[in-house]
Amino acid sequence: MSATSPGGAPRSGPSATISSIAAELGVSVPTVSKVLNGRTDVAPKTRAKVEAALERHQYKRRRRGPAVVGPPLIDLAFHELDSAWSIEIIRGVEASAAAEGVGVVLSEFGGRHRPEQDWLDAVLARRPLGVILVLSGLGKAQQHQFESRSIPFVVVDTAGEPPEDVPTVGSNNWNGGLSATRHLLRLGHRRVAVISGPADVVCSRARVDGFRSAHAEAGLTVDPSLIRYGDFYVDGGYEHGKDLLSRPDRPTAIFAGSDMQALGVLRAARELGLHVPRDLSVVGYDNLPLTEWIGPALTTVNQPLHAMASTATRLLVELSRGEEPELLRVDLATELIVRESTAPPAE
Amino acid sequence: MSATSPGGAPRSGPSATISSIAAELGVSVPTVSKVLNGRTDVAPKTRAKVEAALERHQYKRRRRGPAVVGPPLIDLAFHELDSAWSIEIIRGVEASAAAEGVGVVLSEFGGRHRPEQDWLDAVLARRPLGVILVLSGLGKAQQHQFESRSIPFVVVDTAGEPPEDVPTVGSNNWNGGLSATRHLLRLGHRRVAVISGPADVVCSRARVDGFRSAHAEAGLTVDPSLIRYGDFYVDGGYEHGKDLLSRPDRPTAIFAGSDMQALGVLRAARELGLHVPRDLSVVGYDNLPLTEWIGPALTTVNQPLHAMASTATRLLVELSRGEEPELLRVDLATELIVRESTAPPAE
Repeated sequence: MSATSPGGAPRSGPSATISSIAAELGVSVPTVSKVLNGRTDVAPKTRAKVEAALERHQYKRRRRGPAVVGPPLIDLAFHELDSAWSIEIIRGVEASAAAEGVGVVLSEFGGRHRPEQDWLDAVLARRPLGVILVLSGLGKAQQHQFESRSIPFVVVDTAGEPPEDVPTVGSNNWNGGLSATRHLLRLGHRRVAVISGPADVVCSRARVDGFRSAHAEAGLTVDPSLIRYGDFYVDGGYEHGKDLLSRPDRPTAIFAGSDMQALGVLRAARELGLHVPRDLSVVGYDNLPLTEWIGPALTTVNQPLHAMASTATRLLVELSRGEEPELLRVDLATELIVRESTAPPAE
Repeated sequence: MSATSPGGAPRSGPSATISSIAAELGVSVPTVSKVLNGRTDVAPKTRAKVEAALERHQYKRRRRGPAVVGPPLIDLAFHELDSAWSIEIIRGVEASAAAEGVGVVLSEFGGRHRPEQDWLDAVLARRPLGVILVLSGLGKAQQHQFESRSIPFVVVDTAGEPPEDVPTVGSNNWNGGLSATRHLLRLGHRRVAVISGPADVVCSRARVDGFRSAHAEAGLTVDPSLIRYGDFYVDGGYEHGKDLLSRPDRPTAIFAGSDMQALGVLRAARELGLHVPRDLSVVGYDNLPLTEWIGPALTTVNQPLHAMASTATRLLVELSRGEEPELLRVDLATELIVRESTAPPAE
């Protein structure tokens, strides 16, 4: 048994055991054990007391085999399953997991960026090899629940900014925002709007910062009213698009935070009788398969979703074997794909 | 223990047991047991012998609890994970399973309509509550492997025509084909093409038959060269679309077998300088969320994917409880949604 955690930090202080914790709290050993296994037949008050003790003692259970008989499992959890974006991630995880002989249990958090206790209990009881969280993260107490059971986890496309010891796989969002905006400025656009995802999601902010940087390096100032935050869905793109394009000083180009948002912008433009790219240039983000088929085919930033997913899966499998991966934080490169939806502004 | 199978058929002959099968074959009881549990540490020859005996005796194991500690699981397997179509199914299964406190293990068969033995072994070892197969089915021997382990399964959108005792959930494809084609004929179109899925997939054939029926009831004959089979993907729609629309006697309307195929047809039309719907009407199939956002918004047949998925999940949970569902075969209604891509033919 190793005396270090998977992250490599030495365990502090004398090791607490299930027995010592049970004795300290005046509960039975099976009670502590039940809490560790995510069993829900323990009184909530007792349970909270045990969790607190586990955290206080930085208890870390020896890695146990999976609870499942047969092939091991990993848990893949989305904050929300939507559109072709999720499918790209699922396919990447599925392919890499299958190659390792690992099954994939899929869940979604119904739009929340943090899981609820029900889901955590299910995972603790299932004892998967590990957990991949997409566009979501764990609260500190939740993180400790996984750590004390030695269940590793990896975050794909973090929503917030997780602590440094949390393994994450993402893509270079700042660079994506920079290259999309540079492309528009170099075409000659001077009134460029951005519709990004939620302001509290770190990838949205990074893309907007890239947008600002492209302006700064070209010596241009940004009209703050052209910077919009919303969600990553079509409706948001449509609403902001309608609003931006109805202004007398409407932008001649819009950089959307996702391909779905870009679809909404294209729809808004059509309804207002604006031709893309003659009257309006549009850049999307993600490079979903459909973007090369719609009319006009969308200029977009390729986010390597499949590679992000398979990188996360391999990282998780390494962690589950107790290996120490070279890198705990991986950002894969983004790349601008120029198609038909961008052109120089009309005179 | 019930003496009838979940389908209600009485078990024939005297019940074989693990011991009696082991004695008959001259192998040990644990060997038979290992085969039943999908363990791969049994010589292939022995394994085949045991499987044959299980089948010969119509052996059916008493339903056992799941192998997993913690919440039970179901297996959801796709012949292929692709596009937003799969996401709609996944969300439906996920939502209904979560409501039952059941986890979902997701797999895909890499485009094959039959699973490989590796996957079957994993499922036999995992002992899920049951299995949902999407656009795929089981061979006879594979079906018996599940039956002998009392693992129920439900097929969503069958590819082939499974035996009558196989529970299936689908939608009324024939009616979908009929209503799409009626719509086009009533608009005045007289040269209508259909691009369907593979000819050996039952839902493709049903849609084409609906297409034929609509012509027949209008007293019109169908030009056989306007009936095309392909796959359900964009490329297929594009290729067939290009071919059909380049003919001197090109059709004035195309009914596509999926929304993705319709996207391909729209692209082909754009490249040939044909305006939709002025020069060409296009009807899709599925009613994926993106169809109302693309330009022109697509007239399409709504396939209730979410409802099909949740119906299948509930059916599976019932079967896993040993209940006898009222219906083993459910076809949900399809409905034509008229949007912007269809209009009367140009004079």
